[in-house]
Amino acid sequence: MELITVERAEQIIQSQTRDYGTIRVPYEHSLGRVLAEKLVADRDLPPFNRATVDGIAIAYRAYKEDGLRSFTVNAIQAAGETPLAISSTNECIEIMTGAALDSSLDTVVRYEDIVVANGTATVNDIEIKQGQNIHLQGKDKKEGDVVADACRLITPALVGLAASVGKTDLLVKRLPKVAIVTTGDELVGVEENPTPYQLRRSNDVTIQSVLTRYGIQADRLHVNDDYDTMKGTFQRCLQSYDVLLLTGGVSMGKFDYIPQVLEHLGVKKLFHKVRQRPGKPFWFGTYQDQQVIFAFPGNPVSVFMCLHRYFLPWLERSLDVKISSPQYAVLQHDMDFSYPLHYFAQVKLEVDHQGTVTAQPVESNGSGDFSNLIYTDAFMELPLEKNKFKKGEVYKIWPYNV
Amino acid sequence: MELITVERAEQIIQSQTRDYGTIRVPYEHSLGRVLAEKLVADRDLPPFNRATVDGIAIAYRAYKEDGLRSFTVNAIQAAGETPLAISSTNECIEIMTGAALDSSLDTVVRYEDIVVANGTATVNDIEIKQGQNIHLQGKDKKEGDVVADACRLITPALVGLAASVGKTDLLVKRLPKVAIVTTGDELVGVEENPTPYQLRRSNDVTIQSVLTRYGIQADRLHVNDDYDTMKGTFQRCLQSYDVLLLTGGVSMGKFDYIPQVLEHLGVKKLFHKVRQRPGKPFWFGTYQDQQVIFAFPGNPVSVFMCLHRYFLPWLERSLDVKISSPQYAVLQHDMDFSYPLHYFAQVKLEVDHQGTVTAQPVESNGSGDFSNLIYTDAFMELPLEKNKFKKGEVYKIWPYNV
Repeated sequence: MELITVERAEQIIQSQTRDYGTIRVPYEHSLGRVLAEKLVADRDLPPFNRATVDGIAIAYRAYKEDGLRSFTVNAIQAAGETPLAISSTNECIEIMTGAALDSSLDTVVRYEDIVVANGTATVNDIEIKQGQNIHLQGKDKKEGDVVADACRLITPALVGLAASVGKTDLLVKRLPKVAIVTTGDELVGVEENPTPYQLRRSNDVTIQSVLTRYGIQADRLHVNDDYDTMKGTFQRCLQSYDVLLLTGGVSMGKFDYIPQVLEHLGVKKLFHKVRQRPGKPFWFGTYQDQQVIFAFPGNPVSVFMCLHRYFLPWLERSLDVKISSPQYAVLQHDMDFSYPLHYFAQVKLEVDHQGTVTAQPVESNGSGDFSNLIYTDAFMELPLEKNKFKKGEVYKIWPYNV
Repeated sequence: MELITVERAEQIIQSQTRDYGTIRVPYEHSLGRVLAEKLVADRDLPPFNRATVDGIAIAYRAYKEDGLRSFTVNAIQAAGETPLAISSTNECIEIMTGAALDSSLDTVVRYEDIVVANGTATVNDIEIKQGQNIHLQGKDKKEGDVVADACRLITPALVGLAASVGKTDLLVKRLPKVAIVTTGDELVGVEENPTPYQLRRSNDVTIQSVLTRYGIQADRLHVNDDYDTMKGTFQRCLQSYDVLLLTGGVSMGKFDYIPQVLEHLGVKKLFHKVRQRPGKPFWFGTYQDQQVIFAFPGNPVSVFMCLHRYFLPWLERSLDVKISSPQYAVLQHDMDFSYPLHYFAQVKLEVDHQGTVTAQPVESNGSGDFSNLIYTDAFMELPLEKNKFKKGEVYKIWPYNV
């Protein structure tokens, strides 16, 4: 069995992206989803000439050409009210932030720069510019302008923007239905009491938690290492889900039935085993050009790495959005890794006072040791072509715990 | 009225952190909460000497001292089974990844390095090391060791770790009850049809969306600019909530009642107005040394900035956790800002191939223009002591949209 490179594995996986269509959701429940339509301004933004301070609105030519400094207060206008006009340029309107200016007014002087007494506002000895303190109609956007492109992650700011243009429901990308299936006779439920030779399941809830960030509510199942039980479970899953994320049972062991069972069910293997540590036995395939099956090794660190390095980029590409793009960081001490494998080191990230992202590798006891994952921030990808990695060199990182 | 500096405002706010106690939640619903207890290993991790590959388990001295290369296969042992012993050192056990080794065995040779035929496993001509391919009991953690400190954000990896040590419920920090109260006669609901001089509310849903990241389900209320209505609403809020986040009505306007109403209700003003743009009219106070009141200006960009610069750090400090610490980035082009104010510029962040975080300022039309917030990633904090900011200089950033 020929092992393939990380780059080749990535290429094969990325060639199998899927389109799950779109669905409408209320804007208040759209956070974290991927926008599938353009948002356009339903009117100019701002929709009117808007006072940006509290003070008086005047006609600038009265100040400039006629040399007026005192203005009779005609009325007070609050935000939200129909604009009030002046009938003569020696008048002004006391106007509040957010209020709309009538066309007879073109300049706003803030309270700090005037004195109001006995119904007259007098401008202090300062320089006034025409149009000051006004946010002009359509300055930000014109009616019909695009305010947000499709294929963007819906952030809090985007939810607010949707509200401001009156979009009460948004077209978003539909999410794949995902089943997480753990395998392994040694695994028991978290509520159960393991024998001295058993372990509690944890990969399923970890994967499920990562997927909630994308709004995916994945189902969790467990099957023991029994050929027929596996076959039945996987068959049902292939009918009901778009994506299967399996853990365990893909190595050389006598009871590592997953590749066999999947192939027996007609799942097409696209690769098995990658030149990487952790996660070497990673298996990937598709079913009837529809379902996509990621079969990860059982070790928690392998699962976590493969999820972030392969599955999430596949998911984001399927949803046509880029959220967790790989980044770069500067290695903070020398590392040796003498196997002909791509090595994914767990690192702690920090941004120093020069604005540089630094990566401090944390020693791990192997792929079974996942207790460091909570103290680290990313996998640093150390290419298989090299064995020695020097302090100060820059490598790609895949952040997690964000 | 003396304006205070950003640093002083921060100091005052940080001196008013609160402790909301703790609560138990099921581990499956703990994601994003703050852990309030230490997690300890309920047994050694791993709990037994664990085979890390599939192959045969042998006694090393038979190989080393007796020179044996062929071993009779005594039995096959799957993961999860009671460990099987050999009765003589010329025997071996075929052992699967994850299985527990009996004390008669101390070394594992993987299938790739042996040939099994007629009940005998023969080791290829390779060097074998004592103890290889075994994850020793207690190597990662000893029973009773701390696997996670208190005051950590609960990430997917931490949920998995909790599962692995059998913690079905977790003590987490209790969250404050938060009311978001928008004010302003010009604001209408998203479902309503605004007149030409009205705007749709958006600050409330934006703030609410940001708070969901912390697990806070804030309530939204709106009151018009009417003194008595405001008084009634704020009074009820002060009885039912821990934190009030208000928007609008804190400037110089004739209907900017909020400071007056709050002080009338006995809320103690700790500051009003900060030397910053946007967000200058920001008001902050406390009620009976319990409730904390952040009264932001009404402009969406001001609200967004004050929320990220002041409220979230206050919240994180109250929860005793550091999630969104300020970072540093390198300014990508010269900027002038000639007012004696701290300036918060909207910037697009990127990590270049040298691992440097770069910040590209995006021109904004003022604090009313929030359409850029969805295309940018952070506020860059440009100190009031300077007016010119040069390309290549490093400043603090406050990320959002993460």
